[in-house]
Amino acid sequence: MATVDQRAVPDLLGVLAYAELTAFDRLAEDARLAPTLDGRASLARMAAAEVAHHGRLTARLRELGIEPAEAMAPFVAPLDAFHDGTRASTWLEGLVKAYVGDGLATDFYREIAAFLPQPDRALVEEVLADTGYADFAVREVRAAIVADRAVAGRLALWARRLVGEALTQSQAVIAEHDRLAELIIAGTGDLAGVGQLLQRITTAHGHRMRALGLNP
Amino acid sequence: MATVDQRAVPDLLGVLAYAELTAFDRLAEDARLAPTLDGRASLARMAAAEVAHHGRLTARLRELGIEPAEAMAPFVAPLDAFHDGTRASTWLEGLVKAYVGDGLATDFYREIAAFLPQPDRALVEEVLADTGYADFAVREVRAAIVADRAVAGRLALWARRLVGEALTQSQAVIAEHDRLAELIIAGTGDLAGVGQLLQRITTAHGHRMRALGLNP
Repeated sequence: MATVDQRAVPDLLGVLAYAELTAFDRLAEDARLAPTLDGRASLARMAAAEVAHHGRLTARLRELGIEPAEAMAPFVAPLDAFHDGTRASTWLEGLVKAYVGDGLATDFYREIAAFLPQPDRALVEEVLADTGYADFAVREVRAAIVADRAVAGRLALWARRLVGEALTQSQAVIAEHDRLAELIIAGTGDLAGVGQLLQRITTAHGHRMRALGLNP
Repeated sequence: MATVDQRAVPDLLGVLAYAELTAFDRLAEDARLAPTLDGRASLARMAAAEVAHHGRLTARLRELGIEPAEAMAPFVAPLDAFHDGTRASTWLEGLVKAYVGDGLATDFYREIAAFLPQPDRALVEEVLADTGYADFAVREVRAAIVADRAVAGRLALWARRLVGEALTQSQAVIAEHDRLAELIIAGTGDLAGVGQLLQRITTAHGHRMRALGLNP
C-alpha cells in the first residue's frame, strides 16, 4: 500500500464525528415516527450509540491537539444539505435511509480507514460497527412489503434518490478537500484502484437493497 | 413510614420509563437549537444518558413480568400533552424547561421513590441522578442574562408557564391512577405529610430559579 498523507486523519475524524452527530439527530427524529413504543425505544437506543461514537472521535481529535468543532466545521454544510434534501416523511423511508444511506457511507469510510495508520484505523472501524440497526431495518421493511407489495416500488425509488443525493454531496466534499482526495488516490494506488473501490461499494449497496426486498 | 401498596411500583416505573423517552426526544430536539457544535454535542450526550436510564427501567419492568410498553401506555397522553403545550422555541427556553421542569419532576419522583421497597428505590434514585444538565443549563442561562437583562423577565414568565402546565398534567395523572395517589398518601402518612412534600418541592424549585438568575 502506498504511503498516505497523515494530515488527512483529522479530516476523516472530523467528517465522521459530524456524521455521527447528524446520525443521532436523524435517528431521534425518526424515533418519533415509530408506530410502537418499542420501535421508538429501539431507535432512541441506536441514536445513543451514535453519540457514544461521536464522543470517541472527538476525544481522539483532542488527543491530537485539534478542537473537534474546528475539525467538523467544513463538513457541516454538505452533510446538512444531504439530510435536508432527503428528509424521511414516513417511518419506512427513515429506516431505508438509515440502512441504505448509512450503509453506503460506512462502506466508503471503512475503505478509507484501511489506508490510515493505527490507532486511527482501529478507532474508525470501531465507530463504524453496526449498532444493531441493519437487522432491525431489514425486519421492519420486509414485513411492510409483505403486508403491501406497492410499498416496495415506492421505497426503491426513494433509495435511488438517496444514492443520487449522497453522490452529489460526497463529490462536493472531496472536491473541496484535496487531502481526502489524495488519500483515496494514494491509498488505492491509482485510478483503477479507485474504480475497484467504487465497484465494491456498489456491490455491497446491491446486497443491502436485496436484503430489504427492493430492486437495486 | 407507613406500609405502601407495592402494586404502585409498575406505575411509577412505567411513568418514569416514558418520561425518560420523552426527555430523550426533547433534548434531541433542543440540541438542534444549540448555537454551537459543542453545545449540540453536550445535549446529545445528555439525551443518550436518558436512553440508558430508560433501558434500566424497562429491564426492571420485564424482570417483574410486565411489558414496558403496557406500563408506559397510560402515561403517554398526559406527558405528551405537557410537552406539546410547552414546546421550547429558543435554545434558552429549552434549557430552562429541562432544568426547571425536569428538576420539579425529579424532586417529585424522588419523594415517591423514598416510599418504595428495594431494589426499586435504588433504581429510581439512580435513573434520577443528574446527567450533567444542571450545571450546563445554569452556566448558559446566566451568561445569556448577563449579556441581555431583558432575557431574565421573559424566561421567568416561561418558567411560570411550565410550572402551571406541569401541575395540570400531574394532577391529571394522579387523578386517574388511584394507586399512585394512595402511595403518596400512605407514604407521607397523611394530608399534612402531603403538604410538607409539596413544600419541599416548592422550596427546591425556588432554589433552582435563583440559581438561573430568575425570580421564582
